[in-house]
Amino acid sequence: MNSAIRSVVRYAVFHQISVVGVSYGYQGLVDKNFRDLGRKDVSNIINLGGTFLKTARSQDFFDKRARKKAYKNMVESGIDSYIVIGGNGSYRGALVFNREFDFPVVGIPATIDNDIAGTQETLGFDTALNTAMEAIDKIRDTAYSMDRIFLIEVMGRKSGAIAVHSALAGGAEDIIIPGIEKDIETVLQKVKQGRKTGKKSWIIIVAEGSGKTLTMAEGLRKYIDDVRVTVIGHVQRGGNPSAFDRILGARMGKAAVDALLNGKRHHAIGWVNDGPIIYPLRDAVQYKKEDFSKFIELIQVLT
Amino acid sequence: MNSAIRSVVRYAVFHQISVVGVSYGYQGLVDKNFRDLGRKDVSNIINLGGTFLKTARSQDFFDKRARKKAYKNMVESGIDSYIVIGGNGSYRGALVFNREFDFPVVGIPATIDNDIAGTQETLGFDTALNTAMEAIDKIRDTAYSMDRIFLIEVMGRKSGAIAVHSALAGGAEDIIIPGIEKDIETVLQKVKQGRKTGKKSWIIIVAEGSGKTLTMAEGLRKYIDDVRVTVIGHVQRGGNPSAFDRILGARMGKAAVDALLNGKRHHAIGWVNDGPIIYPLRDAVQYKKEDFSKFIELIQVLT
Amino acid sequence: MNSAIRSVVRYAVFHQISVVGVSYGYQGLVDKNFRDLGRKDVSNIINLGGTFLKTARSQDFFDKRARKKAYKNMVESGIDSYIVIGGNGSYRGALVFNREFDFPVVGIPATIDNDIAGTQETLGFDTALNTAMEAIDKIRDTAYSMDRIFLIEVMGRKSGAIAVHSALAGGAEDIIIPGIEKDIETVLQKVKQGRKTGKKSWIIIVAEGSGKTLTMAEGLRKYIDDVRVTVIGHVQRGGNPSAFDRILGARMGKAAVDALLNGKRHHAIGWVNDGPIIYPLRDAVQYKKEDFSKFIELIQVLT
Amino acid sequence: MNSAIRSVVRYAVFHQISVVGVSYGYQGLVDKNFRDLGRKDVSNIINLGGTFLKTARSQDFFDKRARKKAYKNMVESGIDSYIVIGGNGSYRGALVFNREFDFPVVGIPATIDNDIAGTQETLGFDTALNTAMEAIDKIRDTAYSMDRIFLIEVMGRKSGAIAVHSALAGGAEDIIIPGIEKDIETVLQKVKQGRKTGKKSWIIIVAEGSGKTLTMAEGLRKYIDDVRVTVIGHVQRGGNPSAFDRILGARMGKAAVDALLNGKRHHAIGWVNDGPIIYPLRDAVQYKKEDFSKFIELIQVLT
Repeated sequence: MNSAIRSVVRYAVFHQISVVGVSYGYQGLVDKNFRDLGRKDVSNIINLGGTFLKTARSQDFFDKRARKKAYKNMVESGIDSYIVIGGNGSYRGALVFNREFDFPVVGIPATIDNDIAGTQETLGFDTALNTAMEAIDKIRDTAYSMDRIFLIEVMGRKSGAIAVHSALAGGAEDIIIPGIEKDIETVLQKVKQGRKTGKKSWIIIVAEGSGKTLTMAEGLRKYIDDVRVTVIGHVQRGGNPSAFDRILGARMGKAAVDALLNGKRHHAIGWVNDGPIIYPLRDAVQYKKEDFSKFIELIQVLT
Repeated sequence: MNSAIRSVVRYAVFHQISVVGVSYGYQGLVDKNFRDLGRKDVSNIINLGGTFLKTARSQDFFDKRARKKAYKNMVESGIDSYIVIGGNGSYRGALVFNREFDFPVVGIPATIDNDIAGTQETLGFDTALNTAMEAIDKIRDTAYSMDRIFLIEVMGRKSGAIAVHSALAGGAEDIIIPGIEKDIETVLQKVKQGRKTGKKSWIIIVAEGSGKTLTMAEGLRKYIDDVRVTVIGHVQRGGNPSAFDRILGARMGKAAVDALLNGKRHHAIGWVNDGPIIYPLRDAVQYKKEDFSKFIELIQVLT
Repeated sequence: MNSAIRSVVRYAVFHQISVVGVSYGYQGLVDKNFRDLGRKDVSNIINLGGTFLKTARSQDFFDKRARKKAYKNMVESGIDSYIVIGGNGSYRGALVFNREFDFPVVGIPATIDNDIAGTQETLGFDTALNTAMEAIDKIRDTAYSMDRIFLIEVMGRKSGAIAVHSALAGGAEDIIIPGIEKDIETVLQKVKQGRKTGKKSWIIIVAEGSGKTLTMAEGLRKYIDDVRVTVIGHVQRGGNPSAFDRILGARMGKAAVDALLNGKRHHAIGWVNDGPIIYPLRDAVQYKKEDFSKFIELIQVLT
Repeated sequence: MNSAIRSVVRYAVFHQISVVGVSYGYQGLVDKNFRDLGRKDVSNIINLGGTFLKTARSQDFFDKRARKKAYKNMVESGIDSYIVIGGNGSYRGALVFNREFDFPVVGIPATIDNDIAGTQETLGFDTALNTAMEAIDKIRDTAYSMDRIFLIEVMGRKSGAIAVHSALAGGAEDIIIPGIEKDIETVLQKVKQGRKTGKKSWIIIVAEGSGKTLTMAEGLRKYIDDVRVTVIGHVQRGGNPSAFDRILGARMGKAAVDALLNGKRHHAIGWVNDGPIIYPLRDAVQYKKEDFSKFIELIQVLT
């Protein structure tokens, strides 16, 4: 995110536009948590994880009166449009706010789940994927050394994006994601068959959103002694961003400023075929239907 | 461990001693899972985590008949002494075996818990510590960006070694380890006071062995909304070893071979003041009493 | 590369096709350096850099008699088609060999320079880019702490791909690549102006292929005392591959086997819009004209 | 260094002592580049490389008038003692200043060369060592894949500390450091013998201070075609500090404040047997004689 903020600030300054940073997201709009941002304020942040502006989930913003206050705060401070960097929730807030006050907004997609409709890429996904993969690599050292079975839970609420990609990159043996049923019997069958052909360690990636990590572990333990569970957890949300994410952030930041300059008022930046697109925010908050069946098939063939 | 194995093999070969690798630890002794190891067999492993020889916990070895079989296997294969790389359990097995068959053994201390008596250092601790610290760094990105409280559970059954070191290195705000009582009220008080003075994010490191992670989380949640828990888990057991661990492995491997050459029969290698010592195995399996109170004090003063 | 080899082997085995691995590239064809590869031979390699099959530049292969021997070797060993993983040189060899012996070949693009025509991505680029970026991050610590100017040379013979991407990701202040003239005066002017506005450290990324690293350093030193040069060098060619590269390798490996199964005889796998394409090898060896001017502009605007 | 600064500030504040940060080292003393440092000023820096206070080499400070100005600045600002974090040069400056103005100072040893007399450890060494080792790991991927010989130059002006430790940790085949003569013939002989016994790739670590990198490369190239040189360079000076260095920084920072509180006026903190010692600065600036012959022997035996 910091790369995107840096890009927005410096590209805007280059166009002689003043930039105000909002801390704590929508809550900051309500609380008038503003500060001017110049070129130097975004120095030496491109390599840091998280966001130096701080963020938060705002309950207040669900209340129309709070949103009115936010609108008033922005007008008073001479803010005439804004860029929101976030996922589905942030986008929905932006849509509501835009409908109520006709306030121009452009969204930059940022979520490690890569589950925003209309864009192939979101900020943070590549970094989270690499973090998950590195954790799998480390666990494989133990799985291999001790012939063990590991269930590794990676993030992904409704989406299996991190799961399928980290499983393929990590050379995992099996995968469980939301929306694709898989019973313990089938998983067990494959483990047993693997053991017959000499494959003694076995790594199964489970997307958090499937809710199956513990039941699967318990199910497997009825037949196999040494089944371990690791939940990678919040480690995936931080860390120095990857080159891909930093470049994406820099280019999306520029695209967002350009979009506002071109008069867009309720749009999102998307990334398609390695370049930016601009499309209505309302299309971005639709359900992103992704078919991971080919990925899953490939993971299993390559086991 | 791979660095130690490489060192044992090559240093022994240098002394024109043949080396046999045993897979799956004591179970491999029982099952005669042996293979000759030459210089080339240990090429390109120094940078890899885990152990290329594979390891296991052996139930069989608790049975005297199995140990007799192990002894017979070794004698048949012309093995006249062995080096065991491991922690407390491995050392206890070695002691029993030595008493029964008077079979020469030298131990190299390897455990991420750093809980072996008589040695300041054990193989794997520095690597696990760095892994835990890097996870804390990543989680701090989120903790800071969102003003959140995190409980991070690191490994350590009876020992708080990883916990206190990773807390100090990670700049954590509080710490809970086995053997030092800490009630929720005290922890909560500090969090609240921190918030008053502007310290909004708060990271508490909990040693697995304290068993307090979940009760502490539930306790804190009664008063504070956003308390998150991350269990770093088995990630800490793998990964490319640090420079310190590789050098320690290389030097301990040499020291172990030297010890056998010098007629030691039931001893362990220890590391004191950056150099090797040799001492009886029976002293190594004593309880290692470590006083971390100064560390804990420093962590809290530096918060 | 290991991910691609693993994928080729396992996907082929899945289709009940036998796979022979060739060590040392074309030289291995000439020397009949073959070995059968099954599923287990490619276990635990997905996370390793380099190639476990080993590679080499072959002078012999420029000689028609040697190529004839290679052909004979392949026929004798029952090989009826092959997959070459490499860059421009490897592809040119494959084309010549295909014309002479009508021997079916499919190419997988692998070069850290990302300079193969007809594909947006090549294996190894993302990993090398991240390595270069991490080096820039580390050097920035010193540049910032000491207000210094650094010239950092990254790889790239004819291509500025690593240079422009690592400069954008690393937040560098300026960039020099082959094909775009830049005199010392212009570079110096910007440095001086930066210093006036408080930007005291300055990182300039230079693509190796520009050949300008030393002359630029000497030129700058006439006016500024503390100019340092770092050549990142071969570090960029190794290291644990990134998630992107491993997934790309796995998917390209499958695509290459599919292409042979579909009767392709002198083709390459390309990657366009996040999916595979198949196109004639002769198109892949054309000069890849890439216009990096927008990247360079963005780097300078974001300085 | 940031960990040490954080520790000094927070431990001093805990003792109700005010702390002033000096930017740009001694130059900052001359220029009165001071700022008050409180607990919050050192938040979120423990994981960052370099120093957030900035540093510099000061020519001015060699001039007595400048030092007098520095003294006046400190007295005016109510500073009554100071802590200097640095290497030999910083210590010599502190000694001169102390003799002239009897101004209390305590030194914390910080240099990646680990060449300060009287202390086993210096801040930055472990981090630089790990960086050098990781670079060796990456280069080994290429060396192994292509059967190549690499000369890798690591930092170390007069000291071979990084060289011998990174060579042992990186599994290098040979090593060249200042003070130990080694002719090309000897090096070549070993390479050739290695090739006979199947060891085809060969990594030689060269300490910068030996000045032998290029002559050795040219010498080897007369007999062997493919000899590559990589100079790791300034990358070694930055990067997120290792756990060891952060803990050392935290503990040394505390020890330095304690030393001043205990009335020490011209002393340095040293680290011996994993704990702090306090000793006269004049002893710290003596030549540190280290005998690396056992390390070098071990590296060669383990090749």
